Amino acid sequence: MIFRPGLSVAMLTGTTPCWVATQAVSGNGAFARGALPEGLELLVVLGGDGTLLSATRALAGQRVPILAVNLGGLGFLTSVTREELYPVLEQVLDGRHNTSERMMLDAEIIHFSKPAEKQCALNDAVANKAALARMLDFDVAVDGTHVGRYRADGLIVATPTGSTAYSLAAGGPIIHPTLDAFVITPICPHMLTNRPLVIPDTSRVELDFAEGDEPAFLTLDGQIGFQLEPKDRVVITKSKAKVQFVSPPRLTYYEILRSKLRWGER
Amino acid sequence: MIFRPGLSVAMLTGTTPCWVATQAVSGNGAFARGALPEGLELLVVLGGDGTLLSATRALAGQRVPILAVNLGGLGFLTSVTREELYPVLEQVLDGRHNTSERMMLDAEIIHFSKPAEKQCALNDAVANKAALARMLDFDVAVDGTHVGRYRADGLIVATPTGSTAYSLAAGGPIIHPTLDAFVITPICPHMLTNRPLVIPDTSRVELDFAEGDEPAFLTLDGQIGFQLEPKDRVVITKSKAKVQFVSPPRLTYYEILRSKLRWGER
Amino acid sequence: MIFRPGLSVAMLTGTTPCWVATQAVSGNGAFARGALPEGLELLVVLGGDGTLLSATRALAGQRVPILAVNLGGLGFLTSVTREELYPVLEQVLDGRHNTSERMMLDAEIIHFSKPAEKQCALNDAVANKAALARMLDFDVAVDGTHVGRYRADGLIVATPTGSTAYSLAAGGPIIHPTLDAFVITPICPHMLTNRPLVIPDTSRVELDFAEGDEPAFLTLDGQIGFQLEPKDRVVITKSKAKVQFVSPPRLTYYEILRSKLRWGER
Amino acid sequence: MIFRPGLSVAMLTGTTPCWVATQAVSGNGAFARGALPEGLELLVVLGGDGTLLSATRALAGQRVPILAVNLGGLGFLTSVTREELYPVLEQVLDGRHNTSERMMLDAEIIHFSKPAEKQCALNDAVANKAALARMLDFDVAVDGTHVGRYRADGLIVATPTGSTAYSLAAGGPIIHPTLDAFVITPICPHMLTNRPLVIPDTSRVELDFAEGDEPAFLTLDGQIGFQLEPKDRVVITKSKAKVQFVSPPRLTYYEILRSKLRWGER
Repeated sequence: MIFRPGLSVAMLTGTTPCWVATQAVSGNGAFARGALPEGLELLVVLGGDGTLLSATRALAGQRVPILAVNLGGLGFLTSVTREELYPVLEQVLDGRHNTSERMMLDAEIIHFSKPAEKQCALNDAVANKAALARMLDFDVAVDGTHVGRYRADGLIVATPTGSTAYSLAAGGPIIHPTLDAFVITPICPHMLTNRPLVIPDTSRVELDFAEGDEPAFLTLDGQIGFQLEPKDRVVITKSKAKVQFVSPPRLTYYEILRSKLRWGER
Repeated sequence: MIFRPGLSVAMLTGTTPCWVATQAVSGNGAFARGALPEGLELLVVLGGDGTLLSATRALAGQRVPILAVNLGGLGFLTSVTREELYPVLEQVLDGRHNTSERMMLDAEIIHFSKPAEKQCALNDAVANKAALARMLDFDVAVDGTHVGRYRADGLIVATPTGSTAYSLAAGGPIIHPTLDAFVITPICPHMLTNRPLVIPDTSRVELDFAEGDEPAFLTLDGQIGFQLEPKDRVVITKSKAKVQFVSPPRLTYYEILRSKLRWGER
Repeated sequence: MIFRPGLSVAMLTGTTPCWVATQAVSGNGAFARGALPEGLELLVVLGGDGTLLSATRALAGQRVPILAVNLGGLGFLTSVTREELYPVLEQVLDGRHNTSERMMLDAEIIHFSKPAEKQCALNDAVANKAALARMLDFDVAVDGTHVGRYRADGLIVATPTGSTAYSLAAGGPIIHPTLDAFVITPICPHMLTNRPLVIPDTSRVELDFAEGDEPAFLTLDGQIGFQLEPKDRVVITKSKAKVQFVSPPRLTYYEILRSKLRWGER
Repeated sequence: MIFRPGLSVAMLTGTTPCWVATQAVSGNGAFARGALPEGLELLVVLGGDGTLLSATRALAGQRVPILAVNLGGLGFLTSVTREELYPVLEQVLDGRHNTSERMMLDAEIIHFSKPAEKQCALNDAVANKAALARMLDFDVAVDGTHVGRYRADGLIVATPTGSTAYSLAAGGPIIHPTLDAFVITPICPHMLTNRPLVIPDTSRVELDFAEGDEPAFLTLDGQIGFQLEPKDRVVITKSKAKVQFVSPPRLTYYEILRSKLRWGER
């Protein structure tokens, strides 16, 4: 990708509910979050992981690299700091930058055997009980094979990128972002042997909720939510959409990990 | 306590919404769950742990022993099986039975510095996020000392009896029922070092929810629920109420534990 | 046991310290475990996971399928039961059987910058402290990048096959056998944030032990052990050797998992 | 360092293998670690948790308060910093200091039904497998009741004080020091339901090792070790000995906890 003086760049921040194009993109300087300008060549996102997640989903399917700047400190995803913004921007303009690609997942709700909703997510799809409910009761199948009936607060299906988010808090492992995998992490399972399960990302994960049970909820990236109906099925697969991040100038994945999790230094 | 032919017994089952007195107690054969007959000398509860928990709270404060019969199998609490019911009943009538006492906890909601609700629980008081919310942010203090700010799905304060229920699923330890203790178990804490904490049951545990935050919910024994308002405080202390269970004829605590958790046999 | 004329079969059992060729393979009926007969077309292993692990390492590098029969019950690896032995053998003789391939790892000890020992393993390579020592202090690097300094009882590097063995007991996730991955699971880490890490199997994992520290030990598949010298380095990579198992007639991976871990049935 | 005439003080440091009495105690200025001077009124320990643990065991049974100074930073036990040493010493000389008492445990090895060794510990008694062994197989009984057969790397029986040491790394809970309890924490148990168990400190915990099994090792406070013989029994009870620590001037237990575990601040 070769950048030029007339580079089309848009910027998203956490505090404003709109895109701000830093130069003429398609005749306008501001866009609703959902209405991504056409012909975009770079998206600069200023904010925390939450802002970045919503930008990622908006871009999904378009091969526009994201330059993520974390204003609050070091994030798992947004590892370019405020100080590094300008040097990295110059790298991008010169075409000297590296990008890393991250997979996303698609979660589809099947209602009475018909697709009802479909959304993609960078981190995770989470099935959850209601706040005052006691527990969910659901079946998990992978590629048509029954894996188990779970009695739990819920279940997380996370990408490698999402493995350091909610899944980690629920007891899941850390998954290197280049691994073609999902991790299925139950939330507070009643059965103590229901441990996190790492499977190929070519898998089709199906969650089936029993009739007459407590209502279940589905959340994507902790940002988009749906209440499920009894007998609904949720199907999770790898998304065709991927996202490209402009790589930070110096830190490797393990350095970010070590720093974020406060692992010991040499 | 000496039993006699005219023993006043009531019975509660999981499927009927009322008490059924097996013989004349105070001139009536059926009672609303909340309206416990007076002069009761024994309560027989047929059902699972859920039925037993609601019976326990209804009795709280009265020293009426509970004879719990688990129709479905072996429960942590209800360890008298269907087959053992009559032999144990005869023991009770002869005054040859043993009882074991279990502590309960009180949870009080403080709204604008005023007590708003107070409930007791045998197992646990649980503060929880809403189904579609991302996380709760709250402070925990014990006896007026700040313990920590938690970012988590919620927090469980459990009695020893409750330590084998929800708290266990959330990663808590098993606490022997004679220990004078609470366990504070965070649910999916963001901070991986937020580990379960076992404290004396003389402690006063306070949860404070930040203003402007996601709504939090409080559940007692997974059965009674409240939505908390911003700035509400929840205070948990040992209850004056205790509950007495008629002991099963043979099993010790460790035998029940080993059986329920399917630990290896000798 | 009658085999088709021409099929070269050897058999290994857990109780005998030798191979027993069930028909003339290379002119002899018994072999030392290390001396595998040439021209072998099938290896039948009767025993538990331990016997199978040693057979696997002996075969490493040769493409001889293993028909594993678990005499004691269902194993993670050896899922053909005693009853299924003859039907499966007939499938093999008819060439109607399926096989599944499992990756292995190589662990190499580097002593004063020179390769000193190299062994392959099907399940795991484990670095461990001495029984009376307090803790190991070591550095982990992946592909030349420092991952972290660990203070722990030890560290497990497991294949997907080994993820349901020792690594699971140490808190690791379950990894599907077709995933091209290692899992690095610390044993009782002092730092609570040192969580299991799943990485591509193309990674080169290096463990460096500090000078003057407690002695460390390296174990392969829990069967072959070495005492490490101070300043030794252990390097773990994917092995060129793979192992092929004759697939059991009916059970899928998830069915074996559900059965072994006693997950709930539908 | 000037002490009030008459106060008998000894000092222990981590680097010297002897006691150094800062003034005439019983006619001598230096003592072997095991030979504690008589008539001692205060023991000052300079060092880390390891030095303090050995001082504690040497003192066991004598009611001499320990003033522990952590030269390296904040320790769980030794919370008086270098800067606080003199102010706290002055409080001690004036009799204005507070002390906190901590329970200890006794571990006894029974060899062929006869007591063979007995040691006390402030933190924990740990049964452990040999470095190259696969697993230990042992039975745990409490007060004569069989709790379970464990297949694990080992088992930790910890005091509340020890709950933040090795037991925490093995997955155990944090136990408040005033709670009259032990925690039994298995190390990498094969059975995933073998969870930490908190029991009254009046309990008698017995570990029985199977005949013909791998050798087991017993360690007290990570400092004193024994190799067990087959069929040996280890019995753990509360010690009559207690230890008294001079309280640090400001920090509460929860503050030390929050700081050591890096929990979030308000």
